[in-house]
Amino acid sequence: MAVGNIDFPEMNSVSGIKLGTHNAGIKQTERDDILVIEMAEGSNCAGVFTKNAFCAAPVHLAKANLSHNPRWLLINSGNANAGTGEQGMTDAQGCCQAVAQQFGATAEQVLPFSTGVIGENLPVNKIEAALPAAVENLHEDNWDKAAQAIMTTDTFSKGASTVISIQGQPVTITGISKGAGMIQPNMATMLGFVATDAKISQQLLQHCLSVAAELSFNRITVDGDTSTNDACMLLASCCSKAPEIKVDSEDYTIFAEAVMSVCKRLAELIVRDGEGATKLIRIQVEQAESDAEALQVAKTIAHSPLVKTAFFASDPNWGRILAAVGRAGVCNMDLQKVEIYLDDICIVNNGGRADSYTEEKGQQVMNQEEIQLRVILGRGQARQQVLSCDLSYDYVKINAEYRT
Amino acid sequence: MAVGNIDFPEMNSVSGIKLGTHNAGIKQTERDDILVIEMAEGSNCAGVFTKNAFCAAPVHLAKANLSHNPRWLLINSGNANAGTGEQGMTDAQGCCQAVAQQFGATAEQVLPFSTGVIGENLPVNKIEAALPAAVENLHEDNWDKAAQAIMTTDTFSKGASTVISIQGQPVTITGISKGAGMIQPNMATMLGFVATDAKISQQLLQHCLSVAAELSFNRITVDGDTSTNDACMLLASCCSKAPEIKVDSEDYTIFAEAVMSVCKRLAELIVRDGEGATKLIRIQVEQAESDAEALQVAKTIAHSPLVKTAFFASDPNWGRILAAVGRAGVCNMDLQKVEIYLDDICIVNNGGRADSYTEEKGQQVMNQEEIQLRVILGRGQARQQVLSCDLSYDYVKINAEYRT
Repeated sequence: MAVGNIDFPEMNSVSGIKLGTHNAGIKQTERDDILVIEMAEGSNCAGVFTKNAFCAAPVHLAKANLSHNPRWLLINSGNANAGTGEQGMTDAQGCCQAVAQQFGATAEQVLPFSTGVIGENLPVNKIEAALPAAVENLHEDNWDKAAQAIMTTDTFSKGASTVISIQGQPVTITGISKGAGMIQPNMATMLGFVATDAKISQQLLQHCLSVAAELSFNRITVDGDTSTNDACMLLASCCSKAPEIKVDSEDYTIFAEAVMSVCKRLAELIVRDGEGATKLIRIQVEQAESDAEALQVAKTIAHSPLVKTAFFASDPNWGRILAAVGRAGVCNMDLQKVEIYLDDICIVNNGGRADSYTEEKGQQVMNQEEIQLRVILGRGQARQQVLSCDLSYDYVKINAEYRT
Repeated sequence: MAVGNIDFPEMNSVSGIKLGTHNAGIKQTERDDILVIEMAEGSNCAGVFTKNAFCAAPVHLAKANLSHNPRWLLINSGNANAGTGEQGMTDAQGCCQAVAQQFGATAEQVLPFSTGVIGENLPVNKIEAALPAAVENLHEDNWDKAAQAIMTTDTFSKGASTVISIQGQPVTITGISKGAGMIQPNMATMLGFVATDAKISQQLLQHCLSVAAELSFNRITVDGDTSTNDACMLLASCCSKAPEIKVDSEDYTIFAEAVMSVCKRLAELIVRDGEGATKLIRIQVEQAESDAEALQVAKTIAHSPLVKTAFFASDPNWGRILAAVGRAGVCNMDLQKVEIYLDDICIVNNGGRADSYTEEKGQQVMNQEEIQLRVILGRGQARQQVLSCDLSYDYVKINAEYRT
């Protein structure tokens, strides 16, 4: 179902970051479903989390423990431990405690993450039983296994990796993500784990992640549903030989750009694996009065079931796009100034269908697997881009059959 | 596909309101697709219209002509005359002119309405050619034919009718509506035409319609897409023998309630005919801080593709409902106070699944064709209800194949 042929990339290991997986039998029986990540002593760790008011127990706990110099992350797939009340918090704490015991550490040094079905209690005993094997497997070269262990309805595992040079020394940035449905990240998204060996303070790392997540994970949507469990973490082992990356330095600019590019790739992979997706749509809104206005229009288009089904049908039904722009809630919009393009083909200008437009030209673009939709509002200078996908029979199938 | 067995009701004719239909061959070839409504001299007419910023040419013109004591309405299905630029306005004016010629009137006395595909020019000549036959057919007993003539993707024609007593004299209220997709009315909705023989001023009629539309058509949603052509009209021929209905009178209360009940029925019929709908969902949010907050939560649930597909699958996946409530944007919501009910079954309380809840109980409710979903926020006294439907394979099928 994925849009495009996606091979799992070469993943550069990150010095000081080890990963271990094992099968706890939470839901999947064949695939590893727990992942332990160990950070070298002296590492820093930043995180962004879902803004869903009912965030899951592990999200509460991970947020709280972030300030206790965490050294370990425990991620399970197959169960979100969300909507589980007090028992959910007890279970999340129990998992942290189990990890801590493995390393003679305290539970506060462990960050828990869960993804999967909402509303069922976490089988803590299964996770406890599988933990020793996962810990035994800890290794810096396990990024591919880690990417597989965190999958739920994903059809492929997602990774991105790059090496940059800071003051002549290599610095690695490697990350994995998961997610295919309940995707409209707000502040953070689904699960993403990005690690680097850069030397960088926690504060600057957090700033770097917040900016990167806003322009990557927070710019994608599959179905407009913000999950209760979204989280993205940026881990810095500080093991690189490169000097510390300081605020406002040229090194920081290089580093932040590389983190951004890894996050953008991981985000795009999630849309490409959107539940039932057959097309990747880049919706770019230009000449808006503000970024907020541009985003508002882009997301209204991205969430319109009528627009999404038209893309699925490869139907250049621009009337639906125009109607979505019109209902986006922008005050005093002038239809005469609006232009809409499918790739390079102008479909709307001067208040209606462009004179140069033909159904054949529109059809040609719509037949593609990747499409850029540009909407020019003629109101200002702001521009924003959102990545989305179409709405197909398989979206309904996947979500009508998820629990059965 | 309709939810429930729906027979077209007995329609009481409205003295002073005549309807005539004919087949203009706009898109359908077998069904009548134009409707002329003639109001007796001295009638009053109120309207509410779409808030989509790009409303269609006929909507602009109908709004403008509303102040010119209109006597005729011309409605066509098969073509929305939206996104058609200057040509669209010329075409809408041409249609009004053609009606005016039939009656020796002025074009300003005609209100035009169009519904159907967006972005194609209106075939004015076809409509002109069919007009004389529609005018010849004008009769007070044609409500059933009228209801059929305005259908597009509707699978059944929609009507509601009631007779009340004002000062011992009968007053009739009869209406028709159409709509099945691109349905999240905002201010007005799809097309609705309600007529009465009551004597009532234009101003009071407008007030009555605005209130009724807000609590009926503006409380339904199929896919969250607000159309460019929504309009609902309330026509009063003033032909009843009952005395004039005055503001703040008991008569007005009785009349307004009857108009409301007709509008609510017409609105519910649209949801029951929602594209691909297999279930009718009444989403009631209680104990909100304000009506706006209650509506916000109700609409977030109603528009969640994950919730809608779970209803389609008859899957009591309450985690998706909880996640939708959580992302609705309500500040400082306390999950501990939230209760969620499927009909009488409590599924969520105290921050998680209710102790008394069993999957079997939830399943039993979900198997029904009509389901009430109650969400209690525990924050205040406001309550609002929204009618919605599920998201099925057929929604995708209908909208992926609409133009082909």
